[in-house]
Amino acid sequence: MTSIGIFGSMGRMGRAIAEIAPGLGATIAGGSDVGDNPADLARKADVLVDFSAPAALEAHLGAARAARTPIVIGTTGLNPHQHALIDAAAAEIPVLQTGNTSLGIGLLARLAREAAARLGPDWDIEIVEMHHRNKADAPSGTALMLGNAVAHGIGTTLAEAGVSDRAGLTGPRADGTIGMASLRGGSVVGDHSVVFATAGERIELIHRADDRAIFARGAIQAALWLKGQQPGRYTMDQVLGI
Amino acid sequence: MTSIGIFGSMGRMGRAIAEIAPGLGATIAGGSDVGDNPADLARKADVLVDFSAPAALEAHLGAARAARTPIVIGTTGLNPHQHALIDAAAAEIPVLQTGNTSLGIGLLARLAREAAARLGPDWDIEIVEMHHRNKADAPSGTALMLGNAVAHGIGTTLAEAGVSDRAGLTGPRADGTIGMASLRGGSVVGDHSVVFATAGERIELIHRADDRAIFARGAIQAALWLKGQQPGRYTMDQVLGI
Amino acid sequence: MTSIGIFGSMGRMGRAIAEIAPGLGATIAGGSDVGDNPADLARKADVLVDFSAPAALEAHLGAARAARTPIVIGTTGLNPHQHALIDAAAAEIPVLQTGNTSLGIGLLARLAREAAARLGPDWDIEIVEMHHRNKADAPSGTALMLGNAVAHGIGTTLAEAGVSDRAGLTGPRADGTIGMASLRGGSVVGDHSVVFATAGERIELIHRADDRAIFARGAIQAALWLKGQQPGRYTMDQVLGI
Amino acid sequence: MTSIGIFGSMGRMGRAIAEIAPGLGATIAGGSDVGDNPADLARKADVLVDFSAPAALEAHLGAARAARTPIVIGTTGLNPHQHALIDAAAAEIPVLQTGNTSLGIGLLARLAREAAARLGPDWDIEIVEMHHRNKADAPSGTALMLGNAVAHGIGTTLAEAGVSDRAGLTGPRADGTIGMASLRGGSVVGDHSVVFATAGERIELIHRADDRAIFARGAIQAALWLKGQQPGRYTMDQVLGI
Repeated sequence: MTSIGIFGSMGRMGRAIAEIAPGLGATIAGGSDVGDNPADLARKADVLVDFSAPAALEAHLGAARAARTPIVIGTTGLNPHQHALIDAAAAEIPVLQTGNTSLGIGLLARLAREAAARLGPDWDIEIVEMHHRNKADAPSGTALMLGNAVAHGIGTTLAEAGVSDRAGLTGPRADGTIGMASLRGGSVVGDHSVVFATAGERIELIHRADDRAIFARGAIQAALWLKGQQPGRYTMDQVLGI
Repeated sequence: MTSIGIFGSMGRMGRAIAEIAPGLGATIAGGSDVGDNPADLARKADVLVDFSAPAALEAHLGAARAARTPIVIGTTGLNPHQHALIDAAAAEIPVLQTGNTSLGIGLLARLAREAAARLGPDWDIEIVEMHHRNKADAPSGTALMLGNAVAHGIGTTLAEAGVSDRAGLTGPRADGTIGMASLRGGSVVGDHSVVFATAGERIELIHRADDRAIFARGAIQAALWLKGQQPGRYTMDQVLGI
Repeated sequence: MTSIGIFGSMGRMGRAIAEIAPGLGATIAGGSDVGDNPADLARKADVLVDFSAPAALEAHLGAARAARTPIVIGTTGLNPHQHALIDAAAAEIPVLQTGNTSLGIGLLARLAREAAARLGPDWDIEIVEMHHRNKADAPSGTALMLGNAVAHGIGTTLAEAGVSDRAGLTGPRADGTIGMASLRGGSVVGDHSVVFATAGERIELIHRADDRAIFARGAIQAALWLKGQQPGRYTMDQVLGI
Repeated sequence: MTSIGIFGSMGRMGRAIAEIAPGLGATIAGGSDVGDNPADLARKADVLVDFSAPAALEAHLGAARAARTPIVIGTTGLNPHQHALIDAAAAEIPVLQTGNTSLGIGLLARLAREAAARLGPDWDIEIVEMHHRNKADAPSGTALMLGNAVAHGIGTTLAEAGVSDRAGLTGPRADGTIGMASLRGGSVVGDHSVVFATAGERIELIHRADDRAIFARGAIQAALWLKGQQPGRYTMDQVLGI
């Protein structure tokens, strides 16, 4: 049985992972004998997951490298230096870093990129997301990830093609743009839609998250998968076998 | 059989009305003997519909008053002076002015206002619309109409409560606001959704227009209804019997 | 502060009500001094809620009548004799019996009935619901409630107008029917859509339940509202002030 | 410029193809000198499209083979003998036979099959379609095509896994089944949804057809693509470059 070591074990994601891991065939490494020491945890675990904070990433990566233990990183908001640290670690151990550990979102991003690439420039692309009323940023990180996926599919970047301020006398829609819209309300965990529209028809690719547990489950599945890999930097797509 | 006189008979809406009126039990007044003379048309018709241009409104209203013929006005973008002219005419003849002659949208606005009033401040309200890629303004006039309906339902105005620039570090959603989002793409005739969200549940009220003929049909139904009314200013709600 | 006495306090709904009542300005009557005795509980509480079992209804109603305490009944699957008991009790105390205590569903049923009544026979009506994979009956009780609401709106009954076996060579849709369809999958708490379709346009009225707590919250709100009423039999519509 | 010869040129699809072909860079072969003679039409055209009737297929295929002209077949309801004729013709000329010439539906089927294959048995699959009130069969041919695509993705057949009579005491959902539901109403051209649901999340893949012209456009695009191919039997997937 695979033992998972959790950095950030007292956070919301850490506790969720600990709660559902046994049902997915994993145990949780650590306990009173390990405590907060990264090096001890990295030695004790078969695979690590880190949902703590960017500031702790360097120490956690260092412990993982020293112990040669694979690591799943769910921390977001990383800077270029931290991404370079991940790349360096990936030369020695398996590392998977992602902004969204839901397998469903991983698949949606893949399908959306493929659709964008196949449909061609006659199809306009729009992305809409809805989250709970307390979310403080817009668009959601996942919407940005989907936007990057479709931008990649049509050979551009979201920075180049994204449009999020559609109000007033906008004029006709500019070719090759990707519209982004955000709704907020209630307790919505996260809905994302990618809409492709051309003359006479539309395709909508939608993901609805009803329960935050899916993110913990996806992190565990990623960890189980990562354990058997060669050193390198991986993505959720690969966990799905795409 | 009711005869309808069309101002703007060569425009897209005018022709659509002429095409489907016979199937709805109405004839079209006019022809070579009437030509473009508003006074002649107003005398000859049982009821008038005007989908021409704001600049022509004063002449058309004058002809309707002189002939004591009811008039449906689908022209939008009217200024306060033109609205005052309508009010003055409504003292003598039945007048119905509206920005959207679809009966389905009329009902949706009514249901959305009622929902907003009943659900109370724990429910956040968001409006999303999608139109074809050539639409040059956002949000759509119909989305603004729906926004005003729900604003009225919660005792405020859309000018006060509307939020349409949700991007970046927005912070938590402000209480009592009404979010507005616009999608553009393909040839979409017009989709509108009013979303109400609270902890654990959502209500969505949606209208999908697949064919512009619905606006012509609604205008004819409004005309047939208006013929039998007393002088006054009416709305689509009343055509629906609400 | 209102104290609520719960029959069936150890059931899933009973525990959910006890958990969230304090946040809604209510206390829970009972404890070790009250135990399982209905008469004691009825005397101690300001208002009762019963989510136990049909077999216990007669005893619970009797205790409520004796103590003159209002009672919310969420038990379903009642027989005609039990409904007669409720009517008899309603002559002396306020009673509210419902199959769905969500305020959102209560409002949706009201809006759907109104839409059906206003739109007329040119609009076809279809109801679709989705629930989790373990639900053992179809359509859901709530879909049947919505079906009855729209049937009432068009002057018929769901028994008369409902169609749920649309497969094979069905021929054109029969006028005045109400289609019912059921989807099952995953852990969906409950989605319900009422679709109205005519030539060129559609209206969709949708409710999405993301969290079962909404049913407990609605029961508490119904209880708080019922406390101040005269004797009589009430519905969730009235809690909403419709 | 490619010239397209239309079998069934006076049918609804034939006329639609003739109307929009010029805008897509194609001419229509035929006219008074060709008339109804298949051999003449096949010699005159660069590529043929057949939207006539199954009974005429053998003669049309024979003419295409004799003239060595590629042929797109949109006729449905073919029997095994007719499919064998197509296979035989495909040894000598390029042939593409399909039940739905929309490129959007072609892509949706591809994405749905891929999603089914990737997501695995923990995800339940449901298909819902809505069409106009006059459609006489259910589920739609396109829903069956989508059902076959996802069945293929999970290693089974729709005949084996399809469930379309979900009403009454159904018991829990059986593993590995594919639910099929059909809505009818108004003038809906065709909406299709493939829903994948697991614990805590859902993916929905949706296609909405707003205008029948998309089927004519897809047939023309298929014809233009087919002209340059080697002999063989092709599908819409390949037109999309998948």
